Amino acid sequence: MNLTILGCYAATPRTFTNPTAQIVEIKNQLFLIDCGEGTQVQLRKNKIKFSKINRIFISHLHGDHFFGLIGLISTFMLLNRTTDLHIYGPKGIKEIIILQLKLANSWTNYKLIFHELESTESTLIYQDDKVVVKTLPLKHRIYTNGFLFEEKSAPRTLNIAAVQHHNIEKCYYQNIKNGKDITLDTGEVLDNKTLSFDPPKPMRYAFCSDTAYNEALIPLLENVDVLYHEATFLESEAALAAKTMHSTAKQAAAIALKAKVQHLILGHYSTRYKNTTLFAQEAMEVFPDVLLAEDGKSFEF
Amino acid sequence: MNLTILGCYAATPRTFTNPTAQIVEIKNQLFLIDCGEGTQVQLRKNKIKFSKINRIFISHLHGDHFFGLIGLISTFMLLNRTTDLHIYGPKGIKEIIILQLKLANSWTNYKLIFHELESTESTLIYQDDKVVVKTLPLKHRIYTNGFLFEEKSAPRTLNIAAVQHHNIEKCYYQNIKNGKDITLDTGEVLDNKTLSFDPPKPMRYAFCSDTAYNEALIPLLENVDVLYHEATFLESEAALAAKTMHSTAKQAAAIALKAKVQHLILGHYSTRYKNTTLFAQEAMEVFPDVLLAEDGKSFEF
Repeated sequence: MNLTILGCYAATPRTFTNPTAQIVEIKNQLFLIDCGEGTQVQLRKNKIKFSKINRIFISHLHGDHFFGLIGLISTFMLLNRTTDLHIYGPKGIKEIIILQLKLANSWTNYKLIFHELESTESTLIYQDDKVVVKTLPLKHRIYTNGFLFEEKSAPRTLNIAAVQHHNIEKCYYQNIKNGKDITLDTGEVLDNKTLSFDPPKPMRYAFCSDTAYNEALIPLLENVDVLYHEATFLESEAALAAKTMHSTAKQAAAIALKAKVQHLILGHYSTRYKNTTLFAQEAMEVFPDVLLAEDGKSFEF
Repeated sequence: MNLTILGCYAATPRTFTNPTAQIVEIKNQLFLIDCGEGTQVQLRKNKIKFSKINRIFISHLHGDHFFGLIGLISTFMLLNRTTDLHIYGPKGIKEIIILQLKLANSWTNYKLIFHELESTESTLIYQDDKVVVKTLPLKHRIYTNGFLFEEKSAPRTLNIAAVQHHNIEKCYYQNIKNGKDITLDTGEVLDNKTLSFDPPKPMRYAFCSDTAYNEALIPLLENVDVLYHEATFLESEAALAAKTMHSTAKQAAAIALKAKVQHLILGHYSTRYKNTTLFAQEAMEVFPDVLLAEDGKSFEF
C-alpha cells in the first residue's frame, strides 16, 4: 500500500502548499481522495498517470477538498479518456459538476458515474476482489465522510515443500490456497495449516479529514495500520478547533491511541503555522508513532 | 496602464503553465480578466494584493477561463474581505457560484454582486470617473465576450507660463483645464489652446479570447493601443482552429492590421506547441508590432 500526499494544508492554496488531495495505491489500483484546487498540477508534478485514476472519493463540499474536481474532470475529457470515472461524495456534488458541464456545453466522452452519499452511518461504498472502501462519518460543519480502505484477505500461500512431500496433485493447489484440508488416497486427512502459510495481513488505511475530536470514530478505526487524521490546529488554538469543528494534533493522537492504530499521519495544517514539526511534537506526547504529511511526500506501508 | 499575465495557455493547467487570467491596472485600479484554475496562486506569485481586486471580468464559462473563480471568492472570505466584489460574466455564472457556496454552507461576509451578460452587441458594462469597460462580442463555441478597457480623457494641462503671463486668477484654472476660453478684463478673449496643453492620450486595451477569426470585431478595435488576441494555433492547424472556433497567429495579426492597433499581444497558446516564438514569427509576417504573452510577464504601456 502506497500513499502519496498531493496536498495537506487547510484553506487556501498558496505558492508552495496545496489543499487536500492524496493518492492511495492498493494492489496496483489508484484511488484519489479529495481534490482541492490545483490537484491536477500536483498529479503531474508527482508523475501520477491520469489514466490510472478511476475512482475519486470526496470527503465534503468545502472548497479546499473539491474545487479541483471539475478541472480534473475537464482535463480527462481533453485527454480523450474513455474509461468510466466513479465519483463518491456528498449529495449535491453531481448537481455542481453537471451544471458546470452544461453551461460550458462540454460533455464528457467517458461515463461519469456519481455515487452520492447521505448516510451518517459507516457504509460500504465500493468493493472488488482486492479492496473494500467504507465511509467514516466525521463531525464537521457540513456533511463529511472519511474513508476506510481495506485490502481483502489474499489467498493462503502454498507450502511448496510440504505439498511436494505428500505428492499432492496440482489440481488441488487452489483448494489448499482457499484454506481447505486435503484427504489423501490413503484416507489420511492433512490439515490445511500443514500445507500452506498464512497470507500477508491485509492492510487498512483510514482517512479522516475534516473532523472535530470524535470518539465515535474509535471502534471504526480499531487496529488500522495507518490513520491519516486532520490536525488543523495545535492545542494552543483548541478553542478555535472546537469552534470550527477541527482537531488539534493532541486530539488526533488521542484518537490514534484509543483506536490502537499502528501509525498516525497528521495533516490539514492551518496555514498560520510556519513549522509543522510542532504538530509531531505535540502528538508524540500522547502517541509514539507519528508521521507528518507533506505535499509531495510518499509513504509505503 | 499595466498588464500582468497570470496565465496565457489554453486548456489544462500544467506544472509550468497556467490557464487564462490577467490583471489590468488602470490609474491605480486593478481589474482581473478571467480566472482559470490556480489564478489565486498566480496572484500570490506575482505579488498582487488580493484586496485591490474589486472587479472580475469573465469572458466565458469554459473551465480554463473561470474554474479558479470559486476558489478566489472563498479565499477572499478567509481573508476577511468586507469590500464588495463585482463579477461580470455570462448568464449562469451566478448560479454556479451560489450553488457551491450554498452546498458548502459558506456565505461570503462581503457583498458578491453579479453582472450577468447576455447581449450579443458591444455594451458598456462599467464606468467610473477614470475608466470605461465595454464588452466585445466574440465568436466561440459558447457565449463569449472580450473586454475593452478605455481610460477616460484626463483634463487639459495648464500652461503655467501662459496663465501667469496673463495674470489669470486661480479660480479660473479649473475652467481652463476643462477646455474653456477666458475673457480678460480688457474684453480680450484668450483661446483655451493658448492657455493649456492637450492631456495625455487616453489608453485603450482590448482583450479578445476565445474567438474564431471575426472581422466584425475590427470596428470595435479600431486604433486601440494594445490588443490581446488569442492565437491558440499556428496556420498549420488552421482547420483545427476553424473547427474549435479559435484563431491562428496569422488571423490574430490580420485583425490587428485591419483594426490599425498599436501593439498586438498573442496568447492562449495550445499546449501542443513547445516553442511560442513560432507564433510571433507567423504573426509578424502580417503585422509588425507583435508581443508574446508569457505567464508572469508584465507589459507597461
